[in-house]
Amino acid sequence: MKDKLNITPLGGVGQIGSNCTLVQSEDENILIDCGILFPYEDFFDINYLIPDLREVEHRISKIIITHGHEDHIGAIHHYIEKFPEAEIYAPLFAKKLIESKLDYKSLSKKIKPLNSKIEFGAAAITPIHVNHSIPDTKGLMITHDKLDTAVLFISDFKVDLNSPYEAPINLDLIKDFSSKYKRRVALLDSTNIMSKNLHTPSEGSVLKDLKEEMETTTGTTYITSFASNIHRIQTILTAARDLNRFVIPYGRSMLKYIETAVEIGILDDFGIVKDAEDKSIKRQKVVLLSGSQGEFRGTVRRVVSRQDKKFKLKEDDKFIFSSKAIPGNEKKLAMLYNDIIEQGAQLITANEKHIHVSGHPGREDLKVVYESFKPTHSFPIHGESLFLKAHVDFVLNEKISENSEMMLNGDSINIAKEIKLKKTQDQIEPVIYHGADIILERERVSERRKLATQGSILVSFSKESVQKFKPSCEVTLMGLPTIVDNEVNDFKIYVSQLIKDNKNKTLDEKKEEIRIATRRFFGERLGYRPVAIVHIC
Amino acid sequence: MKDKLNITPLGGVGQIGSNCTLVQSEDENILIDCGILFPYEDFFDINYLIPDLREVEHRISKIIITHGHEDHIGAIHHYIEKFPEAEIYAPLFAKKLIESKLDYKSLSKKIKPLNSKIEFGAAAITPIHVNHSIPDTKGLMITHDKLDTAVLFISDFKVDLNSPYEAPINLDLIKDFSSKYKRRVALLDSTNIMSKNLHTPSEGSVLKDLKEEMETTTGTTYITSFASNIHRIQTILTAARDLNRFVIPYGRSMLKYIETAVEIGILDDFGIVKDAEDKSIKRQKVVLLSGSQGEFRGTVRRVVSRQDKKFKLKEDDKFIFSSKAIPGNEKKLAMLYNDIIEQGAQLITANEKHIHVSGHPGREDLKVVYESFKPTHSFPIHGESLFLKAHVDFVLNEKISENSEMMLNGDSINIAKEIKLKKTQDQIEPVIYHGADIILERERVSERRKLATQGSILVSFSKESVQKFKPSCEVTLMGLPTIVDNEVNDFKIYVSQLIKDNKNKTLDEKKEEIRIATRRFFGERLGYRPVAIVHIC
Repeated sequence: MKDKLNITPLGGVGQIGSNCTLVQSEDENILIDCGILFPYEDFFDINYLIPDLREVEHRISKIIITHGHEDHIGAIHHYIEKFPEAEIYAPLFAKKLIESKLDYKSLSKKIKPLNSKIEFGAAAITPIHVNHSIPDTKGLMITHDKLDTAVLFISDFKVDLNSPYEAPINLDLIKDFSSKYKRRVALLDSTNIMSKNLHTPSEGSVLKDLKEEMETTTGTTYITSFASNIHRIQTILTAARDLNRFVIPYGRSMLKYIETAVEIGILDDFGIVKDAEDKSIKRQKVVLLSGSQGEFRGTVRRVVSRQDKKFKLKEDDKFIFSSKAIPGNEKKLAMLYNDIIEQGAQLITANEKHIHVSGHPGREDLKVVYESFKPTHSFPIHGESLFLKAHVDFVLNEKISENSEMMLNGDSINIAKEIKLKKTQDQIEPVIYHGADIILERERVSERRKLATQGSILVSFSKESVQKFKPSCEVTLMGLPTIVDNEVNDFKIYVSQLIKDNKNKTLDEKKEEIRIATRRFFGERLGYRPVAIVHIC
Repeated sequence: MKDKLNITPLGGVGQIGSNCTLVQSEDENILIDCGILFPYEDFFDINYLIPDLREVEHRISKIIITHGHEDHIGAIHHYIEKFPEAEIYAPLFAKKLIESKLDYKSLSKKIKPLNSKIEFGAAAITPIHVNHSIPDTKGLMITHDKLDTAVLFISDFKVDLNSPYEAPINLDLIKDFSSKYKRRVALLDSTNIMSKNLHTPSEGSVLKDLKEEMETTTGTTYITSFASNIHRIQTILTAARDLNRFVIPYGRSMLKYIETAVEIGILDDFGIVKDAEDKSIKRQKVVLLSGSQGEFRGTVRRVVSRQDKKFKLKEDDKFIFSSKAIPGNEKKLAMLYNDIIEQGAQLITANEKHIHVSGHPGREDLKVVYESFKPTHSFPIHGESLFLKAHVDFVLNEKISENSEMMLNGDSINIAKEIKLKKTQDQIEPVIYHGADIILERERVSERRKLATQGSILVSFSKESVQKFKPSCEVTLMGLPTIVDNEVNDFKIYVSQLIKDNKNKTLDEKKEEIRIATRRFFGERLGYRPVAIVHIC
């Protein structure tokens, strides 16, 4: 491959999650990010999905991580297994999170800091500081001098010119690159393109309302936040310190993130962070901090349903949700809100107060970056297909660039003499992981769906009893209404007769006859046919 | 019971759905509405939930239906079975829908029209015309002269003073009652209390944008709407007629509602409604009308995924969603939107254009009704607990009434010398229906959840082989990853040895040993323990 730069997203466009992008310059291939996708439909408690790495045949020399969110680092162990020789670069906070993840999996791999230019093939990648809802987030400038092309890749960012916690996004550096390259390709964040909020407010702006709400609590203050949002946690700590309260992080994830952030000096705990075991603090002084998406088995649900051993919601308590629902979790959170209200406690969400801001750019924020970069081409990333299309329309309507197209997973931006989007012929479906890092095939998920929606019946005979024409069977019903429990005796008589009637058939034929008859027998009573398994042993 | 009026919601407060309210005056008991609740969490394809009628011990003389939505009439056959002697009253459109429902179930029951005052005990109910998203919706004024009390009960309404299709809500009648009774209790709709939209626009206001969007379609126009929203369908028909298009209703539910509405003269089909089989119409002239919440097996999904036999989405088609997501369906709809965009078709939702209005009142609309009625007491209904609480706060903060309390299912408003809310001690959980009108017990739903999230293993031995110490078993894995298929042989050896080692135990003890060992064996490989069923037959 000569004087050619290819960019192919493997995950993260057409869906939010499992971010991974293949970048090829001459004979060297690198990947950007290796994230997980949270289940987007009824996959029955599975853990996550990732792009199907079995389909990736390239040798990968480097993996560049942009920031520490799970949709960018969550699958790192699968990538290390698949590409053991790849060097991994990550910003400091992400590096620490990855190391703790690998440690937990008893894997060892050196993670290099991402802080300066990295060369690959005839191209190079320069990290650019951006703002986001997790510290230490990088945009990437991919440059290819021979092709006179700069590619600005920022999958997650916001424009926060007044953050109390970090420098603003480095627009000067973007402008600098913009002036040096004739062809400029932008791949920018589409998460908030549909939002009516055109400018995402600064992280610092939530302190006022959070503090007011904390101050007016008469009992314990419960606050939920995304555990990785260290700046939000700093804001909560600031409010608590000013009001002489103590903050108790609760839940494994919250503890891990805070510990890591304090360790590398990006979070000041003001000495007011206490342990959940500490009984010396009056409940009115406690600010209990936990993550929550309303999970059925999560910390917050336990506290609200009064099943938690250490903390039980009381009538004078206040629950502050300094976060928002991840799409798909709306109903779960609504149910949690109901429970809080029914317990008589007070509920404050971002619907009523300014206690949460997004980590992604509104349309006006996107314009700021586009104006700095002046792209000749735009291929939006990090969004549902709907968002990508809206982002393309925005770029064209606002005359940000004359060239903008919707790119989906597997499509390739080919940068050579011309810049072209090559559409893939067959999109590869992401694979599903459950349990001990094991792929659960889609047909097995379908089996689970059948078991869950139709229940199941297990029928077994001994071979001997069948051969002696005195068939007697054992039957187990699973997930079926109790009303059919009473039918089991009739069923045994019916199916024993069926075997006698089919005595000349082979064992396999008998089994199949019984299976069909079982589904029919119970199907008539239930209105749906359960899964039937027949053993003759 | 003397000079006493009791009102007890059995469903519909603390949740949206399964509306049913018990009203007792002296020795006569009546019910208002008998609706279903759509599943609000992961209940695995079950049909619906309703209040547990086994717990209702009263004789019911009458059932009053307010309107034809499923959350008000959907469980009518269960109520008829439980209370065969009850007279049923319903507004005309609801009456027709109920009759067609009973017909489908081969049940016969006379439904009386609800159009004038109905007496029960020492009380009476007067229907009051209100606006809503289905024609023929009634509010109810429950009066008890001896107690000098009027109760205004309107679970679903909007205030549409300019509807092109029906008279405005009868505020004069409400004022009239208000002036005659000293004590006035309001039970009003909380559905939109959290909405930032303070006044719900008129149904007629969506015609303009719907027509514009239809006019600018170059291919086929697909429109989704709630099938029961006859006025919306009239608007769509009006736009289509003006543009010389034909409307094809698609899907069983849409066809049934339109047929019923035309039959009783509340829908004018303008002679432009055509059959899906009609091949004579150019696709550019077709407006395909269907219901949709993005159901996996629904009409719209089939069309979009190009699996429908009659209609397949094309690039120049436009999809107009003249409806909104029912809470819990957001993600399903988002996925459908993605699919439409990925097919290259155009998508228009109520996010971009004024093509949908709610059927429920904003805060300003509520004020209009409250100002007409001037309640002395307010107990909000028709809402999640969160909404009820917000509605109570609204009533108190706006000084609409000095008395307002959150009432949940099972609580009772006792109206005698005083008006008091009696809180229930134990809330009864609604029952779950699946299949042929059969109750599926909650522990059986838990079994389904286990099967779906952990998979299952069936292991069977013949008694004889066990007794001869030559145990040989048959094993079936369901819903487990293919990686453990290869472990089955090792497992058979392991478990046969286990039986030999436990030869002195009873059969039941052996079974339990094997069950535990099976879960452990596969659990070690999977990271979670599957459901194991063991037969020795």
